[in-house]
This record gives sequence, structure tokens and C-alpha cells, in this order.
Amino acid sequence: MGKRDTIGVIGGGQLARMMIPAAVNLGLTIKVLEEAPGMSAELAATGVGDYRDLATVLAFAETVDVITFDHEHVPQTVLRELVSRGIPVHPGPDALLYAQDKILMRERLSELGMPMPEWAAVESAEQLGDFLAEHGGRAVVKTPRGGYDGKGVRIVTEAHGADDWFLALADGEHGSALLVEEVVDFRRELAQLVARRPSGDVVAWPVVETVQLDGVCAEVIAPAPQSAGKLSDVAADIAISVATGLGVTGVLAVELFETTDHRLLVNELAMRPHNSGHWTIDGSTTSQFEQHLRAVLDLPLGATGSKDAWSVMVNILGGPAHGTLSDRYPAAFEAHPIVKVHSYGKEPRPGRKVGHVTATGADLDQVAYEARGAAAFFAD
Amino acid sequence: MGKRDTIGVIGGGQLARMMIPAAVNLGLTIKVLEEAPGMSAELAATGVGDYRDLATVLAFAETVDVITFDHEHVPQTVLRELVSRGIPVHPGPDALLYAQDKILMRERLSELGMPMPEWAAVESAEQLGDFLAEHGGRAVVKTPRGGYDGKGVRIVTEAHGADDWFLALADGEHGSALLVEEVVDFRRELAQLVARRPSGDVVAWPVVETVQLDGVCAEVIAPAPQSAGKLSDVAADIAISVATGLGVTGVLAVELFETTDHRLLVNELAMRPHNSGHWTIDGSTTSQFEQHLRAVLDLPLGATGSKDAWSVMVNILGGPAHGTLSDRYPAAFEAHPIVKVHSYGKEPRPGRKVGHVTATGADLDQVAYEARGAAAFFAD
Repeated sequence: MGKRDTIGVIGGGQLARMMIPAAVNLGLTIKVLEEAPGMSAELAATGVGDYRDLATVLAFAETVDVITFDHEHVPQTVLRELVSRGIPVHPGPDALLYAQDKILMRERLSELGMPMPEWAAVESAEQLGDFLAEHGGRAVVKTPRGGYDGKGVRIVTEAHGADDWFLALADGEHGSALLVEEVVDFRRELAQLVARRPSGDVVAWPVVETVQLDGVCAEVIAPAPQSAGKLSDVAADIAISVATGLGVTGVLAVELFETTDHRLLVNELAMRPHNSGHWTIDGSTTSQFEQHLRAVLDLPLGATGSKDAWSVMVNILGGPAHGTLSDRYPAAFEAHPIVKVHSYGKEPRPGRKVGHVTATGADLDQVAYEARGAAAFFAD
Repeated sequence: MGKRDTIGVIGGGQLARMMIPAAVNLGLTIKVLEEAPGMSAELAATGVGDYRDLATVLAFAETVDVITFDHEHVPQTVLRELVSRGIPVHPGPDALLYAQDKILMRERLSELGMPMPEWAAVESAEQLGDFLAEHGGRAVVKTPRGGYDGKGVRIVTEAHGADDWFLALADGEHGSALLVEEVVDFRRELAQLVARRPSGDVVAWPVVETVQLDGVCAEVIAPAPQSAGKLSDVAADIAISVATGLGVTGVLAVELFETTDHRLLVNELAMRPHNSGHWTIDGSTTSQFEQHLRAVLDLPLGATGSKDAWSVMVNILGGPAHGTLSDRYPAAFEAHPIVKVHSYGKEPRPGRKVGHVTATGADLDQVAYEARGAAAFFAD
């Protein structure tokens, strides 16, 4: 890999933060361009600025060997300028396009033959009304860009239910279409994490079950219960096909619905380490953060086996109403010595992801009890 | 723990470096006073200076909530001034004294009734000659202060075999005595790692076997083969007694001889995370680095169980003759996807500890093969 030892991460959130231990372990240098001083990845921050500003990003990029991301929001114009200057960018702009625009994503996944909810790009209340009429009067409407953690997603039951979003999009540069999808009748939600190197190799971790609360990931069980055999193979095949078909480099998370009639449908994509993979830090031979660094440096990927039969990760959402997470350490550590606590160095605020806990072990009930019990110490 | 979230580490070596991931995970702030710019723990360095200089250390200490160490060499005068100013220091000067002076250590362990090689403090060739005469004509002579990794240790077979050391010590402030010990007829060397909080709780990891090469640790097998039952209990009891008896806070490593007649004798002590515990990063529920941070903050200690039946850690000594460790990553990672590689960010140099690798798994032969095979990619 020659002199490709310095990784530049755009964005200073917890995903960038959790790349720091992986970089330290591997003896790599990590530099972070954070949006504001004092963000979660502050320790590795070497620049502060707006990732939408070309000059800011170029100045940062000149100090590193490869560029990767804490999020998918860097504009295509900026990404393509980096590439045109010969700076390695992973994932690259051609792949990130599909993470940035959900309609383009659906179109491309359709071309690849991926199983998905029925969907349409609609440009008017009339078109939305037609879709509703064909799908039992209910549908999920999504803004194609800028949504995350349940934002930009709405259940609609009448044709004028998204008029405000149509209006808001009307003057935008990305067209006025909204994505509309059938409301899937699902048993549960799963997530399939994979990593792909620029040279093409792809590895998959075990498929996991994700439990959402108000559109935000609350808990992850790895592997997904009753997923041995065909289900896990199908999930891995889907995510590997998506990673390859979209040319993703680095970690890719594919959020899936397992329908009541046992089909797997692609819900969302994330082209970066993902909340559904935080369990890998403590539960897998190779964490998603180490794997992401390996992948963006085009190094051989690490083994993705689990270190224990079960891992359960529970998010710390919001955190204590008063004080800091560490105020709760004495009680939480005393009660749960096997649980690994991860704090993102963020101020507690209602609904904010400020940390997570992971427990691993041989018995799922016990592991889930440990993780949920420890997380409860950090609530309100 | 109130506002005790910022840990200050004196010394910028790889032990300080490996505390960084643990601090990041727990949302703690870590600051390092390094001896020179660009040391192994550079990422967390907030000061550069001589740890023997009181003003330098005091200025650093004012920026942190608790002081701990990468090594045991901070002078007692400096340590005691910190304590007198109310700054928490872990381990404290009363404990560190025994890590700084091997004769004081032997005296104190004798008082505690710990099993040890026969030893004496000798101040002349004549006294050394007497010890040799009583111990079959061979003995180990050690300088009481400043030795590590085999330095300051010598096998002597005649009374004048340490005259140069007697001469060098003659003008010193710490007296002119050398430590002399019987040459122990041992089956193998073991190490017992424990951690102790200021409030008194102590936990022990499984006892490990250490393989030395020219006085430097080359390989660690965890747990030590054939150590189940009595042997591991005795090893843990010894280290817990030492930690408690000496008032150690933080991690303590007790190096042990297992004699050919199956006794355990205390060889050396280290009052800090230790090479014999590097396997815990990947092989234990709680790494020695996380545990050290918990202990120095007087937080409840984490579980010390192993995540796999076997862990084998192999040091990377010296590293490649040309280039960097990461030059070897493509080949090493390709051949050994389950192995965890740790690089300390140091320039390769003959004999220098520049990194280590750890493999874990159910079968010892297989695990040892993986670790040794991966380490070999970084040799020559």
C-alpha cells in the first residue's frame, strides 16, 4: 500500500469517532474534517469546516492519502473534483449517488433485479392518489434526499398527504418527484452488513435483527434469531449484489424487511459503517470500523465470524436528563461487568444517539437482559 | 465519579497508546505527556517534556483529573509533590516504590510471605562470592533500579562478575547494593495479571505462559496450558496478595517462574499494563487497558473472562529491515484474516517492540499457527 497510511474522514460524528480505535490499533493515521469544533471525533480532528465547500474539502484532502466519510452528504460536485484530482475517494461518487437519492437507488436496484417494496416516483398529488388506489389506500412517502433516522418519511392515506413536500421540492435542483412505496407487511426488520474493496472482494457479517423505535434503531440482535441457513444466505446474496452492482467501496449496510410471507425486501442503504453493525466492535473478529479502514485502503478484508453465539447492542438514546453518561458508570459497571459501554462524547439531548452498549454470550435471553439492563442505567 | 473524566498519562510509549482506544470507547478524555514529539501515543499527546522535571509534570497534571503512567520511572519526589497537592495518582508513590527498587520489592514481598527465589542484597564482591558459594556457583545479579527487558540483569559465576556495577552504583543516591538471586530451575515462565481499584476490589485474568527471547517477551499463551485448577488459583492468589499488600492501584503484572518441582516463585512486578496482557485487547471481555482506566478512576472493574478458549499473542520485535509494518499488511492480511494486528506507530529498529499480533480460537495449535504465521510477515 506504499504511503497510503493516512485516512481522511469527512464528518466528525460518532462513526468517525469509532474509526479512531481501529486506526490506532492498525498503526494508521486518521484525520477528521469536523463540521464544528468539539464534535464526537474531536480527538482526530485536524480541520473544521463545511463539507459542502470545495476549498475546505480540497485543503483537507491534500493532507491525507484517501478520503472516506462519516455520512453520505458530501455534494457530488465536491466528490467529483476530488476524484478528478486523483485523490482516492471511497465510497466514490458513482456509488454515493445511490445513497444520496432514494429514487435513483430504487431505479438502479430495479435494474439489478433486487427484491423491493413496490414503489414509484410521483410528481403530483394525482400520481400519489393513483399509487394509493393501487395499494390499499396507504403508502410510505419519502423525500428522495436528506432523510435519515425516520426524518423525511411519512405514512400517507390520501392523495394530498404530501402536498407540503411537493411544494418544498418544486424549486429544487433535483426535480419535484417524491418516492412512494407500498406499506410492507413485515414480520421484522433485518440488516445485512457487507464490506467491499476497490479490487472487488466482498465479505458479509451475519444478518442481524434491528428493532426500531419511532423510526430510530433501538436494538440489534446478532445474528438475527432463526436466521440460520437459507435466510442468512439470501440476505448476504442481496447485499453482496448491491455492493457489487452499485460499486460500493467500504462498508455497506442494507436494511431489509422480512415480510410476513418470508420474503426479504430492500428497504434502505447506508454506504458507511452503520448502527446495525456497532455490535461488531465487541462481537466480531473484525469490527465494521476496522473493516471500513481496510476496505478504503484496498487491503485484504478481515474475518467476519462472531466471537460469541449472540451479541445484543442497545442504543443509548437521549441519555441522562441531568449530568453525563459517565455519572452513571459506577452503578452500570457494578451491575453489568460483562457489558461493553460506548460513549460518543456527546452532550445528552432527548432522542440523540449518545452511545450504545453491547453484551455477548452463549444464551440470547441472558445477553439481551445484560444489554438492556445496562442501557437502562443511562436513560432519562 | 463527578468530573473525573480526564485521565493524564505520563509517558508516550505503546502502553499509553493502547489506552487511547479504551478511553475513546468509554467517552473519557485521555491526555499524554510524552517525552519527545512524535512518540507512539502522539495522537493523545497534549504536552512534551521530561517526566523527571517537577514543573513540567505539575503543569500537565493541572489539566487532568487523575494521573497514571506508561512506565514506572517518575521520581518519588515528583510523585509525592503531586499527591501533596491533592492530585489523584494511580498507582501511588508508596506502591511504585516497589516497582522502582527491586531490593525494596524483595524485602516487602518477604514480609508478605510471597514465594520467591532465594535472594540477597549484596554490597561487595565478597558478599556476592558468599552467595555464589551457597548457591552452586551461579546466580542472577540485578541492578535494583532502571532495568527492563533483560537490561540490568546478568548471570554471574564468580565473585568479581559484577564489579563494574558495584563501581557504577558506588556514588549513587540509592546505595551501593545489588540484588542477587538464585538461578531458578524453571519449567516455564508465567505471568499473572490483576487490576485493583483504590477502594480495594481486585480482579484477576487467567494466568498466562510467557516465552522470552534474549530476556524480551516474544510470545504469550492465554491461558497457560495445563493451568486449570490449582495452578491458576495459586497464581491468582499470589498476584492478588501482592496487589493488596503493596497497595497497587491499576493493573499489576506479576511475572512468575513455574519451577521444575511445580512451585510458583515471584520473578518481577510491573505496575501498569504489561506485555503479558496485550492478548486481553482481543481475547478478554475487558482489556487490560480499559481495566486500567476503570481502576485509576475507581470505577467498578470489568469481567476478565476469555472470549475464546485460547489466545496467542506474538510480539513484532524489530520489524521489517526496510519500509514500514504496513508495507506487509497486504500479504499478512491475505494469509491471516482472523489475526488482529497491532502496530505501535514506531519506526522499525532491531529488537524494538514495534507491534504485536493476536489470534484467538478453540484450538491452541491452530491459534498459535495463525499468530506466529502472521508475525513472521513482519520479520527481518
